[in-house]
Amino acid sequence: MFGKATGLCAVFAATMLAAGSVALADDALLNEAKDYFKPIPSVVPAVKDNAVTHEKVELGKMLFFDPRLSSSALISCNTCHNLGMGGDDNLETSIGHGWQKGPRNAPTVLNAVFNIAQFWDGRAEDLKAQAKGPVQAGVEMASTPKRVETTLKSLPEYVERFTRAFSGEADPVNFDNMAKAIEAFEATLITPASRFDQFLEGNVAVLNDQEREGLQLFMDKGCASCHNGLNVGGNGYYPFGVVEKPGANILPANDKGRFAVTQTADEEYVFRAGPLRNIELTAPYFHSGMVWDLEQAVAIMGTAQLGEDLSGDEVKAITAFLKTLTGEMPTVTYPVLPVETADTPRPEAMIAQ
Amino acid sequence: MFGKATGLCAVFAATMLAAGSVALADDALLNEAKDYFKPIPSVVPAVKDNAVTHEKVELGKMLFFDPRLSSSALISCNTCHNLGMGGDDNLETSIGHGWQKGPRNAPTVLNAVFNIAQFWDGRAEDLKAQAKGPVQAGVEMASTPKRVETTLKSLPEYVERFTRAFSGEADPVNFDNMAKAIEAFEATLITPASRFDQFLEGNVAVLNDQEREGLQLFMDKGCASCHNGLNVGGNGYYPFGVVEKPGANILPANDKGRFAVTQTADEEYVFRAGPLRNIELTAPYFHSGMVWDLEQAVAIMGTAQLGEDLSGDEVKAITAFLKTLTGEMPTVTYPVLPVETADTPRPEAMIAQ
Repeated sequence: MFGKATGLCAVFAATMLAAGSVALADDALLNEAKDYFKPIPSVVPAVKDNAVTHEKVELGKMLFFDPRLSSSALISCNTCHNLGMGGDDNLETSIGHGWQKGPRNAPTVLNAVFNIAQFWDGRAEDLKAQAKGPVQAGVEMASTPKRVETTLKSLPEYVERFTRAFSGEADPVNFDNMAKAIEAFEATLITPASRFDQFLEGNVAVLNDQEREGLQLFMDKGCASCHNGLNVGGNGYYPFGVVEKPGANILPANDKGRFAVTQTADEEYVFRAGPLRNIELTAPYFHSGMVWDLEQAVAIMGTAQLGEDLSGDEVKAITAFLKTLTGEMPTVTYPVLPVETADTPRPEAMIAQ
Repeated sequence: MFGKATGLCAVFAATMLAAGSVALADDALLNEAKDYFKPIPSVVPAVKDNAVTHEKVELGKMLFFDPRLSSSALISCNTCHNLGMGGDDNLETSIGHGWQKGPRNAPTVLNAVFNIAQFWDGRAEDLKAQAKGPVQAGVEMASTPKRVETTLKSLPEYVERFTRAFSGEADPVNFDNMAKAIEAFEATLITPASRFDQFLEGNVAVLNDQEREGLQLFMDKGCASCHNGLNVGGNGYYPFGVVEKPGANILPANDKGRFAVTQTADEEYVFRAGPLRNIELTAPYFHSGMVWDLEQAVAIMGTAQLGEDLSGDEVKAITAFLKTLTGEMPTVTYPVLPVETADTPRPEAMIAQ
């Protein structure tokens, strides 16, 4: 009887020890992860030089969905940053005015407020600067500040809403304030409460073994040196192909990335590290949009950036971890837009490109 | 004193008489209007051969907003039937796959469930038949039933939702059921409680003098012979230009309307009478989409259909009445769509048209 009891006790003790070492390992993983990453907050963040008010957010939502910001009156921000599809268009590169193909893959608008700067090359310092780009780009919405202002001023409900959102300004209906309102709305497009966020907040059991192994690999192999912080990326600039250049279809020679912004020779093929929040929703990957499979993208990053031939199991584990970065999508009520008046510019005649 | 009192009494009596005759006139107007029109119900209507269930409506909403029903993965039902813009695109004719220009102005999807049949020529007997058209049309979404079914079957959330919405069916994920789900969602896109509906329900004071005069003219001049019923139109077929053909820009010679459906000589240039609910939101007007101004459209109808040169005041009054047909827009939460899998057909390569 003693023997048996001792045996049971030994099993019990071993179990406790194992549980204890698992708990210790979990604590270590959590502590290491906390050094690299931060959870997405559950409240809307403040934005530089642009108070995020209810009036601006509601106005910005209307503008985000209003195709009359484009000269064709067909393309809205939401066309390429579709809030039902991870905040992007799931195309290799976007289709714009006249069915033209854009030069780079559309980045997601979700959590974009947390990025260091906007666009793949960081050429817009914030979302209000970003919002002015596609509206004017000939291959995207092909409009002009003047056309946009004429459109907005022709719609009494917009005039009223701009006046309330930018009260005290002498001429509130203008292109800059359009961008500020859109930025305010976009600041609300955050996706908290992903499983990884729950992990960071101490609920280690929310990630399974493979996902925790993937997180450990993500830090050990060096992915987290560039992809870290709140957005697991989006906060620094790095050369693509630092160890080994990927194929020309993935890294086309004629797109030199940040070099076009800074004209600095050592910034050739430098891009903002992709923010990896909701990455499973935003295929295809890379600025060229040529890779649809997340595992393949992870393997390419291994060889191109780290000089690591990741094993199949390692790739799968890292990918499993990346899928824990999917958060709760914002709830958006589709806005009812003001009806055009006699003064609203008509949609531009069809342009065959 | 008596004199003064009598004078007051006379004024009082005259006021009462005038009020009485106004009330009588109002009653007469209301009764006449009730012979022609019916209010939009505030509950979702039943649909033939397609029970409108919660499961179908939610699924149909996702499909309505899913651009992957088009081969480019860019164009959804909502692109041309924008629920924020009166249920249409406010373009002369729609822009579709490859930036092609469609042949006719996009009709509104709002209250379309109440129309006798769908499309300008009534070639689809109901909304489930209609929904299959644009998905396959080369100038619209340019897809095929096979491609749509492959797409839907590649997305586990859709498979689950079709299985629940069409429970008991052996192979529920199919093109017909896609159309039925969209029809169920569209049946919810009704706009009750317009001021005209409030009038029809007995609140005569909700229309002002000019609007009531417009309603009277609308019935007296003969507009209501074709534009009547629940949708103030949309329930019968009539030749466009029955008295005097409008210009060839408004009635292009090569679009013979219902003749293409019935091949009956006397149906050349016959179209479904436009449903006038929310007409102020759905410019430009007519199947050609060439008229942006509602007053101009009313005047053209006067000469073309009634042989009446309506005076400026008459046109204004009828237009004022038509603007009372704007109802409450449905509240739509933007759907979160399932993320693609390895089996989902990729967006078609860009097609330069």
